Amino acid sequence: MDFDALFDAQLDQLKADGNYRYFAELERKCGKFPKAANHREEGVRDVTVWCSNDYLGMGQHPAVIAAMCEAVERTGTGAGGTRNISGTNHDHLLLERELADLHGKESALLFTSGYVSNWTALSTLGSRLDNCVILSDAGNHASMIEGIRHSKAQKVIWKHNDVVDLEEKLAALPADVPKIVAFESVYSMDGDIAPIREIVEVAEKYGAMTYLDEVHAVGLYGPRGGGVSERDGLADRITLIEGTLGKAYGVVGGYITGSASLCDFIRSFASGFIFTTALPPAVAAAARTSIAHLKASSAERTRQRRQVARLRARLDQAGIPHMENESHIVPVMIGDPVKTRMLADYLMREWDIYVQPINYPTVPKGTERLRFTPSPLHTDEDIDHLVTALEVLWAQCAVSHAVA
Amino acid sequence: MDFDALFDAQLDQLKADGNYRYFAELERKCGKFPKAANHREEGVRDVTVWCSNDYLGMGQHPAVIAAMCEAVERTGTGAGGTRNISGTNHDHLLLERELADLHGKESALLFTSGYVSNWTALSTLGSRLDNCVILSDAGNHASMIEGIRHSKAQKVIWKHNDVVDLEEKLAALPADVPKIVAFESVYSMDGDIAPIREIVEVAEKYGAMTYLDEVHAVGLYGPRGGGVSERDGLADRITLIEGTLGKAYGVVGGYITGSASLCDFIRSFASGFIFTTALPPAVAAAARTSIAHLKASSAERTRQRRQVARLRARLDQAGIPHMENESHIVPVMIGDPVKTRMLADYLMREWDIYVQPINYPTVPKGTERLRFTPSPLHTDEDIDHLVTALEVLWAQCAVSHAVA
Repeated sequence: MDFDALFDAQLDQLKADGNYRYFAELERKCGKFPKAANHREEGVRDVTVWCSNDYLGMGQHPAVIAAMCEAVERTGTGAGGTRNISGTNHDHLLLERELADLHGKESALLFTSGYVSNWTALSTLGSRLDNCVILSDAGNHASMIEGIRHSKAQKVIWKHNDVVDLEEKLAALPADVPKIVAFESVYSMDGDIAPIREIVEVAEKYGAMTYLDEVHAVGLYGPRGGGVSERDGLADRITLIEGTLGKAYGVVGGYITGSASLCDFIRSFASGFIFTTALPPAVAAAARTSIAHLKASSAERTRQRRQVARLRARLDQAGIPHMENESHIVPVMIGDPVKTRMLADYLMREWDIYVQPINYPTVPKGTERLRFTPSPLHTDEDIDHLVTALEVLWAQCAVSHAVA
Repeated sequence: MDFDALFDAQLDQLKADGNYRYFAELERKCGKFPKAANHREEGVRDVTVWCSNDYLGMGQHPAVIAAMCEAVERTGTGAGGTRNISGTNHDHLLLERELADLHGKESALLFTSGYVSNWTALSTLGSRLDNCVILSDAGNHASMIEGIRHSKAQKVIWKHNDVVDLEEKLAALPADVPKIVAFESVYSMDGDIAPIREIVEVAEKYGAMTYLDEVHAVGLYGPRGGGVSERDGLADRITLIEGTLGKAYGVVGGYITGSASLCDFIRSFASGFIFTTALPPAVAAAARTSIAHLKASSAERTRQRRQVARLRARLDQAGIPHMENESHIVPVMIGDPVKTRMLADYLMREWDIYVQPINYPTVPKGTERLRFTPSPLHTDEDIDHLVTALEVLWAQCAVSHAVA
């Protein structure tokens, strides 16, 4: 059987639909963020990165870099095993303590990525709690959707950020089955924020556990970077808070926090935790330094907020429509994969501005967009340069101001 | 609802069965492998690690450490995004080229872990190839089992390493459905090696694709560390070779290699690849250095083989039964979780020897064991010390020589 022909047929369809993905090849350069070198066929050029999830530039913070190098030189480059079989290092435990403290929880548990933490925690809870029902926000991330699907638990989808719909669905379930309300604080592609207080109150009313993904919020919201749940004083009412070390904290990895029993339960039964090599101790050391820094310093958050507001104001002045939200994410809707790619290619080629076209399956078809994430390290000049480029583009292109 | 009570009930059952897991807290120390510090309630003590999957000690190799630190200082601590959205770095592409070359394939694709590479590749292939049937060796790793389950493809389990059974099962399937024969080269817990040539021949006869997990073999077998498939001159006949950067290469991460179409297919459709932050460029740089070193140098492999043979010979002399196999893994069967833990605790406490008790679900109940992985850096004295300890233990304990 010609398997390559089967693969090519599906890839050709993707190309015909405009959904085939071309990765931009970058070289990050310490101390230069948000600038990076971009390798293209024509050569290498410096570009300004406008779509990084290293939201605060902590991946190039001198203290985080120093912590990682110190730990590599002290412990080596890897953990050497699964957490159970020789892979638990002192640095992992120090990080887990730091994470539990960040969210005011008894315990924390590290995973190799945020994807794995969601997939593993939800699939374990859903499969091991008898008759469990998972109530999932319609906008939840792929990692949560796949975890719920893998659990084979009953799944009930409630309308995005709609507490009335959530309550109707909770009320329709038997009182004595375990229920998990799974949702995010900041939704990464629209940048909208969940009504966490209302969701928690409804969940409490029906005795449901709350599962909150804060990956686009940790480090960025709350006086110590504990996320929107910290900002709103709600962390202690949420059963499980999940987060990442790969976005605002600038490293890699995921985690959950919650009661000691909850974390021990996932630790003991979760396939995606048990059967995988632990993160390098040096990754844990770098992440811990980054978290500790952002617990003590709000300067990065304050400056980021300023630059986000500035970009929004400049876009408004230029008449470039962008999606309103109260987060740090600035989506400019285009609504067509081919046009979105064309715009992004032009920005890269003519303006040395890198913003990846966001297409299906990351967003629903018809909602393709450019998604800008201003950081504290983007200068006012960077913002002016971007908005000027977009103005020229909007004037030149077939994309009218009315598109969005 | 009292969720903690639900969790505790299942944890209590685990404890009653002797299957609750206690992680040993280590501090790896560069240049000291296989020694590490062990944190216990009584204090910190240096121990000899006998169960690491850093099989060759490459996680502490000076060139690998230097490469990781150089890249951290050059690029920072993280990738800053998914591969699609600002996360593809030059170092990732260099590593993927090195991996493709290692296995003589057109392309390679990096994942955050070996677990994720198996889970993601198999779930994508199984779900996107119409009417696909996956024929899975009964001994396959959890990551493969979960990936196949998640794909919802038809699964056929064939008897472990039994080519006759595989052929019967292949022959019973319709000729025109896509078939994937999924298996490992070195099985991690028994240390046995698959009859790859016979499996490949049967798969070719029935037009099936072959999916080979070489995670416990890459770096260790073949003149360039390309695994058992390289050693046996079979790599070019295998459709997909999967491997890890977290064992013999001493870092973290997983990968697949195969045709350009195959890798592009997984890259384009796999949830577990698309929706996750890329590995830090520094991890990629360290892994590439490790692979390149073990392509050029066989000294580590030769010395490891010597120490494995020496441990086996000394165990034989001492009358301590161990499982025969042709790999680098030396299992000593105990067959009971409580006894296995008791033995491991005693070795740690009285002899400063760390070998993790291996219990369910890593191995089937009733096959609990101690699993030793001699490295090139274990000295003859380390081996003598271990065997002396086991001799004393075998004489003292209720565990008779006849147990295994």
